[in-house]
Amino acid sequence: MTEFQSRRASLVEQFAELKIDALLVSFLPNVRYLTGFTGSNGLLLLSPERATFFTDPRYKLQSAREVDCHVRVGTGPVMPRVAAQAAKEKIRRLGFEQARVSFEVYDSLKSKLPLGAALRPVAGIVERRRMRKSPVEIETIRAAVRINSEAFEQGIRAISPGMTESDLAAEIEYRMRRLGADKPSFETIVAAGSRSALPHANPGPTPLQHGRFVLIDMGATLNGYTSDMTRMLFLGRPGRKARDLYGAVLEAQLAAIDAVRPGNESGRVDRAARGILRMHGLEKAFMHSTGHGLGLEIHEPPRMGKGEKTPLEAGMAITIEPGAYIEGFGGVRIEDTVLVTANGCEILTPTPKVLLGL
Amino acid sequence: MTEFQSRRASLVEQFAELKIDALLVSFLPNVRYLTGFTGSNGLLLLSPERATFFTDPRYKLQSAREVDCHVRVGTGPVMPRVAAQAAKEKIRRLGFEQARVSFEVYDSLKSKLPLGAALRPVAGIVERRRMRKSPVEIETIRAAVRINSEAFEQGIRAISPGMTESDLAAEIEYRMRRLGADKPSFETIVAAGSRSALPHANPGPTPLQHGRFVLIDMGATLNGYTSDMTRMLFLGRPGRKARDLYGAVLEAQLAAIDAVRPGNESGRVDRAARGILRMHGLEKAFMHSTGHGLGLEIHEPPRMGKGEKTPLEAGMAITIEPGAYIEGFGGVRIEDTVLVTANGCEILTPTPKVLLGL
Repeated sequence: MTEFQSRRASLVEQFAELKIDALLVSFLPNVRYLTGFTGSNGLLLLSPERATFFTDPRYKLQSAREVDCHVRVGTGPVMPRVAAQAAKEKIRRLGFEQARVSFEVYDSLKSKLPLGAALRPVAGIVERRRMRKSPVEIETIRAAVRINSEAFEQGIRAISPGMTESDLAAEIEYRMRRLGADKPSFETIVAAGSRSALPHANPGPTPLQHGRFVLIDMGATLNGYTSDMTRMLFLGRPGRKARDLYGAVLEAQLAAIDAVRPGNESGRVDRAARGILRMHGLEKAFMHSTGHGLGLEIHEPPRMGKGEKTPLEAGMAITIEPGAYIEGFGGVRIEDTVLVTANGCEILTPTPKVLLGL
Repeated sequence: MTEFQSRRASLVEQFAELKIDALLVSFLPNVRYLTGFTGSNGLLLLSPERATFFTDPRYKLQSAREVDCHVRVGTGPVMPRVAAQAAKEKIRRLGFEQARVSFEVYDSLKSKLPLGAALRPVAGIVERRRMRKSPVEIETIRAAVRINSEAFEQGIRAISPGMTESDLAAEIEYRMRRLGADKPSFETIVAAGSRSALPHANPGPTPLQHGRFVLIDMGATLNGYTSDMTRMLFLGRPGRKARDLYGAVLEAQLAAIDAVRPGNESGRVDRAARGILRMHGLEKAFMHSTGHGLGLEIHEPPRMGKGEKTPLEAGMAITIEPGAYIEGFGGVRIEDTVLVTANGCEILTPTPKVLLGL
């Protein structure tokens, strides 16, 4: 049995409880998780008897190589073909991914199902299974994290006078790729000076400035699996305010990591970071959550956010990334990729967390 | 009036015909088109009286800089806030983007609207407006195309023995970024040897091989606007079969370009390419459509596909990219970014289309 077959078999066991006879999987990371397909157009119709994969002719050869279930290649709208297959299998209660299917597709599929068959919205069941990573997935994430850190080190060694945010982002992404990454896990963020106070700044023509922070948030994807890291540079000698801000965020990050262990609710990790920042009077300067799961997507459940109740489990791969942002001055974020283990956690990211003065 | 205000004003004029009082715009490229917002989380509620933009605190500073309408920053699920604003404005018929809103969001929004208010599905109205580009948009696409071609030339000059598909993709993307691109418009495709027969191959560890094709499909995004180009290399001296295949696809591409003029249906462009390939016995080897619009997205309407009826109009930016793929041997695709003009079209891509032997 391949890993994909065993994932599908284990998912099918949940159908009775969900009161569905089959599930239409349309969200690509979920399709990849259940079939191995890496292309951009594919759907899986999964019933206890049969797994049918639908794609278009561009992916005929690729799906024959990658996908270990029945492959149907066709042109034109796919929903009529899905409905026909569902009718053939006499599926009466067809589950669909309610957060991933547009109203339009839902409406079109509903109109094409045979009389007596019904659509049943289903919430995040494949995503929930994806939270706990298998040993192979963990090794892949570990390797993605290593590339991430190595590309960061090579990238910052290439910093030269006059370099812009965009230039440094280009260097980092280039190194990633040469180190074997499929691609960046998201657009690399390089934010210089006061722009570091924008938590999601796109890199632009701003030069890296002396006497100011540079925030670098980056990820490398390997075999589909992501990594995520944020580090701060300081060009020159940081003053008191910069050091205090950095120190507070680092303390918050370590406190959050300390709260990562199986059984703890994910919201508790967020509370740990937030508590430290409150002590430093920085609670309002921290306006995002403390972290998120990652894997085939860069943002996956669980979310380390206020009041989140998901219990952490061994095998989850998550980020821990508190920050504090002060308009006009700059922001600090420190982020590691972390693995929940049986006894606590392992920080996968090897890059040191000293404030790197250049 | 900013360009965003005038786009919104002109969209609002369509509301009566659509039988809606307001429109909820949730698809990010559409939000960007109507507000200027470049971040990853934003929604626009547009009524004749008021444009309200919703985002989360990560984008507080950025939206204050970029967005020229009322900005509401808040945490937690956004739909209750949208519903509250709709109630305040006494909106009774709220349009939503049926292809862009998930069933889940639709269902949640519906349950939160006041009694007497209704949701109305609306299909692709912002996308239709985005098809015809303004002079500023055209200049941006032109600049993105120039970066694309320059990065290609720099990238292939860096080809050295033993280089893999991934290495070349990394070179090309690096050059793009250094030339000022925001990012690649999609994952650069470099497919060597028989892998060129996979129309959407991800670059991998396969070395570029002597005596075989290399297919390079790439795009550069600049200020949010994309470009798209495919060129073929041949390492060594192409044999008869390779030359014939290349010649047939080139002829098809030129025939398709010849059919690009205002008033022609987009399907006619596809027919022109397909007719030539049929003459060469390659009809079945061409299993995708001839091209697509591009702009804020890499794939936009119109589609140059079989039977498509959209009339071409001056100001549309499209790709022309027929191909022919032979399993076990290799594939050829040739693609330009093309602008529909008042009298015909202008090929924006300056890169020559000779089969480049290296």
